Amino acid sequence: MSKLEQVINSIPKVNYAIDKETQMHLDFLTKPQGSLGRLEEIAKQVVRITGNSKPSLKNKIIFTMAADHGVVQEGVSAYPKEVTPQMVYNFVNGGAGINVLARHVGARVVVADVGVAIDLENKSGLYISKIGYGTKSIAKGPAMTREEAIRSLEAGINIFESEFVKGVDLVGTGDMGIGNTTPSSAIVSVITQQPVEKITGKGTGIDNQGLKTKILVIKKAIELNKPTADDGLDVLAKVGGFEIGAIAGVILAACAKRIPVVIDGFISGAAALIALKLQPNIKDYLFAGHCSVEQGHKITLDFMGLKPILDLDLRLGEGTGACLAMSVIEASVKILNEMATFQSAGVSEKI
Amino acid sequence: MSKLEQVINSIPKVNYAIDKETQMHLDFLTKPQGSLGRLEEIAKQVVRITGNSKPSLKNKIIFTMAADHGVVQEGVSAYPKEVTPQMVYNFVNGGAGINVLARHVGARVVVADVGVAIDLENKSGLYISKIGYGTKSIAKGPAMTREEAIRSLEAGINIFESEFVKGVDLVGTGDMGIGNTTPSSAIVSVITQQPVEKITGKGTGIDNQGLKTKILVIKKAIELNKPTADDGLDVLAKVGGFEIGAIAGVILAACAKRIPVVIDGFISGAAALIALKLQPNIKDYLFAGHCSVEQGHKITLDFMGLKPILDLDLRLGEGTGACLAMSVIEASVKILNEMATFQSAGVSEKI
Repeated sequence: MSKLEQVINSIPKVNYAIDKETQMHLDFLTKPQGSLGRLEEIAKQVVRITGNSKPSLKNKIIFTMAADHGVVQEGVSAYPKEVTPQMVYNFVNGGAGINVLARHVGARVVVADVGVAIDLENKSGLYISKIGYGTKSIAKGPAMTREEAIRSLEAGINIFESEFVKGVDLVGTGDMGIGNTTPSSAIVSVITQQPVEKITGKGTGIDNQGLKTKILVIKKAIELNKPTADDGLDVLAKVGGFEIGAIAGVILAACAKRIPVVIDGFISGAAALIALKLQPNIKDYLFAGHCSVEQGHKITLDFMGLKPILDLDLRLGEGTGACLAMSVIEASVKILNEMATFQSAGVSEKI
Repeated sequence: MSKLEQVINSIPKVNYAIDKETQMHLDFLTKPQGSLGRLEEIAKQVVRITGNSKPSLKNKIIFTMAADHGVVQEGVSAYPKEVTPQMVYNFVNGGAGINVLARHVGARVVVADVGVAIDLENKSGLYISKIGYGTKSIAKGPAMTREEAIRSLEAGINIFESEFVKGVDLVGTGDMGIGNTTPSSAIVSVITQQPVEKITGKGTGIDNQGLKTKILVIKKAIELNKPTADDGLDVLAKVGGFEIGAIAGVILAACAKRIPVVIDGFISGAAALIALKLQPNIKDYLFAGHCSVEQGHKITLDFMGLKPILDLDLRLGEGTGACLAMSVIEASVKILNEMATFQSAGVSEKI
């Protein structure tokens, strides 16, 4: 059995039976029942995932996976592809948005090159797990081979497992890859079976003409490659990206260890759809960090039945939305662990 | 000139002219323009309020004001009024929801008794600034005299000023007072001129019959006392509460020092309406921490033109929603202060 199959097969269903006990504990705490709303729901979900009635989420890691996309040559992005490696160095040097937010919430950022188009310098804190020098243009053929799709998923699995031994309680996913809203839109359109026009947005900021081009390119890619919606590996190989595969791998590997996963925006959402096609059990392990401005993201979340924790009009990626939501999730378990009960605080209960 | 008048008169309009410079700086940072959405808007607002282009929000304080309400005798609350002092002790001992969340975001909780119905023990970290032993029932006459309304506002001002000298960069408001959604509903109905039925919710958890009683009591209070909508002091005196006045005082005092204020839920929203009637300039200093489940809260925020930062179905009060939002606001200024620019990171700009 391959590494990928092994991981997929080891993801259990979460334990809904434990909810009753968690709810009982929440109702003993000094607050009107249910008055902490979604914080209580989130805490219950963390207990359900981890099986631990007093979970700690101290070790928070954002996995920011980077790769390039051949489809950039079709004019689908507002930024040149040189920005992918430049931003990887920015992550490693701590100057990007995700670094600032991760420091703020006490998370670490793990950065990996799983397919940047040039060779990167070896830097501390950077995994080099290149599957290739960018994908091929999906407007001309498949993005990658099926074997490369498996390798991109396994890259994510291996990176997660290397960090797991150092301690991980909560995972956030993130992406960097100029052009990557294009393969993500293709994936979301294929898997949710919604029209490309409804899914596709302006990414980092193309104009209306650019958006028309992007929609045509995505439609062409789907018609040409004919991905099979129910075969996650086929969709990833034909219209995906290396970092999208790696993010899906991180998600699967985390679920296999019963670690909650916070998915970031549109690209992470597309990766979650791939992971979901490979193992439907993962749905209950996921938190939607936020709702992106990118229009296909809401459709992606609705398809998975996920309600975003934050809605701050973000569209940066990198893991930024996941990161802020991780702090809310950590707050929810601290409520469970640290609040006084009616009895311990000597507070009267409801009349 | 009274202390209150002095503070009201010293609140300047915020400086919108500075926005252009802040926007320019935000656009130099290594991210697509505008891609951090509301975080960028929030950062701009903090600069506008403080006049500081690199503001720090390290010192965060939640002011949780506690008082009792004579109207509880009309059967409007799900909890007995003994819970007010019990919860004050819980705050001081660090076991309440607000304590857990404040520790999580690195904020301090300042607790004040401005009108609890019994004498409280002197405890470290507790201000005793009692205006009275609870208000009178608003169903039978005014909650307090006009002079007491002024004193409750000045209690908030004095507490804020005592903390200001120790260092305050960001203020969150919070409340504790069994029965206080009733006067808050009355205030919101009078000032927004919306019907009582549209404003009034189930507070800490009364049933449908309790809700009917509560609506009747509020209607009676408004008819009997005839508060003048445009006179904030009159509304506070006739249908308000001591902690509501104190929260309004904290808001005014913070604005006078150009400190941003995060308002919590429904009770804090009612207090903000009182403050707004006393000094319309305050609107631009306010952040709405979250949108409460309590149905009148959205109407309150819409009336002030405020969009909530979080929407987590909270209805606890104490400052809990404000507290989590304070962390998002702090994150937004860290973006401004800590992110690399395209130039410093050597990242290419848009094509």
